Amino acid sequence: MPFTATRRVEFCDTDMAGIVHFANFFKFMEQAEHELFRSLGLQIIGRLPDGTDYSWPRVSASCSYDSPARYEDALEIQVRIARRGNRSLTTAYEFLRNGELLARGEMKTVFCLIPAAGPMHSADIPADIAAKLDAVAD
Amino acid sequence: MPFTATRRVEFCDTDMAGIVHFANFFKFMEQAEHELFRSLGLQIIGRLPDGTDYSWPRVSASCSYDSPARYEDALEIQVRIARRGNRSLTTAYEFLRNGELLARGEMKTVFCLIPAAGPMHSADIPADIAAKLDAVAD
Amino acid sequence: MPFTATRRVEFCDTDMAGIVHFANFFKFMEQAEHELFRSLGLQIIGRLPDGTDYSWPRVSASCSYDSPARYEDALEIQVRIARRGNRSLTTAYEFLRNGELLARGEMKTVFCLIPAAGPMHSADIPADIAAKLDAVAD
Amino acid sequence: MPFTATRRVEFCDTDMAGIVHFANFFKFMEQAEHELFRSLGLQIIGRLPDGTDYSWPRVSASCSYDSPARYEDALEIQVRIARRGNRSLTTAYEFLRNGELLARGEMKTVFCLIPAAGPMHSADIPADIAAKLDAVAD
Repeated sequence: MPFTATRRVEFCDTDMAGIVHFANFFKFMEQAEHELFRSLGLQIIGRLPDGTDYSWPRVSASCSYDSPARYEDALEIQVRIARRGNRSLTTAYEFLRNGELLARGEMKTVFCLIPAAGPMHSADIPADIAAKLDAVAD
Repeated sequence: MPFTATRRVEFCDTDMAGIVHFANFFKFMEQAEHELFRSLGLQIIGRLPDGTDYSWPRVSASCSYDSPARYEDALEIQVRIARRGNRSLTTAYEFLRNGELLARGEMKTVFCLIPAAGPMHSADIPADIAAKLDAVAD
Repeated sequence: MPFTATRRVEFCDTDMAGIVHFANFFKFMEQAEHELFRSLGLQIIGRLPDGTDYSWPRVSASCSYDSPARYEDALEIQVRIARRGNRSLTTAYEFLRNGELLARGEMKTVFCLIPAAGPMHSADIPADIAAKLDAVAD
Repeated sequence: MPFTATRRVEFCDTDMAGIVHFANFFKFMEQAEHELFRSLGLQIIGRLPDGTDYSWPRVSASCSYDSPARYEDALEIQVRIARRGNRSLTTAYEFLRNGELLARGEMKTVFCLIPAAGPMHSADIPADIAAKLDAVAD
């Protein structure tokens, strides 16, 4: 069973074509991704036990659209972990309304450390975080 | 002559009523406010010569709507400094399309210092910043 | 008891100051307003029994900010009907986080008919709609 | 020479990570796509000489991110027509800041007719529209 977030389409999500603006599907995917993280006790921006800050910057995002979503639609957004790499995480999304598939997307993020001095850089996902992600991976 | 910013209405600014979503007028006001600051050599978020960071958090914002704006409209956003207080700045906006007044707004911000330690707090606007603002005030 | 909508602050609601961008409070107010309408069996855009379309265009909106909202905050948005006029509706909003008041807003809309031919124009709120609004007015 | 749109990053384009929110790159691509259409005398939503309405709904969109964009950055968005099919159009985008490549994207749209009665459906791109697109295709 994939993790599922729900979202009611708001008026401000629509555009003059009368449907949800395509860019908003990326915000909806992010919302679902963050709800998945929260459900696992994980954070998108956090601090390691040694005091180093980390975050998960976006590397890529894509979405394909089969059928439009409209104002007040109750969307189900199913999230699957498509691949958990050493340093990266790829999540896959399906948007459903009453069981009908409206759109499909994918996003890739990279685990990065943010040292107090010096630039942000990618790093191996810590074992405890990786274990929580693997527990729900396909 | 008020300072004037221009903006072409984008597709994503509209909603299913076929017009610019009302909340976007606040983004347009902010854009015009920041262009005014930039034209004066001022910054919305910056650092004083003594190294203290500062910013201008929003205290209030309002807008009244006379006529809708639509996709591809070329908007003129006129900005006036309505009041420069010791610690606050009130700016007033008029949205025009080919000379027709579409909307009117107002925003108030407060000058705040962000100490390295301790919470952000309001403070007197530094004299050089105040002088630049006063030079274009009504 | 005012009508209360809830909303979890999303990552995309924030700006580089680390807080919810001020313009998003207007989207949150609209969400709460529409939830109130939905709870009363009313629609923001609809059709009268005689086939005439109607809508509630925005006339004005304002918000004042006391304290910032942040990522993942669970906001309560209380909505009150401040005034139900013959043709207009004014709603008032309070944003709370764990009982702390963060912001306060107000919005005014006008009931408008959209004839098949000819321009949209304001009209008296139909009696059945007015009655539903009055039932929850202060 | 690709068609180039420019855009100053606004404060509201940023998120709490201090950079442009990834979903906004899709709005920037759309802006550039529409400017390209406008430069060719084409419309995103229009009416054929026989009175039939048409539009170009989005089929897919993707973006990959190399380096973040920040507040006040002056972005160059280069648009290329990657493929003009019989019924579809694929456009490719590069985001540059002072010559540095920040991100790359692609979007696909389909030409659709919107009959007065009956559902929207895809159709061959009319010859005069196709000719204008081909004139700037790679």
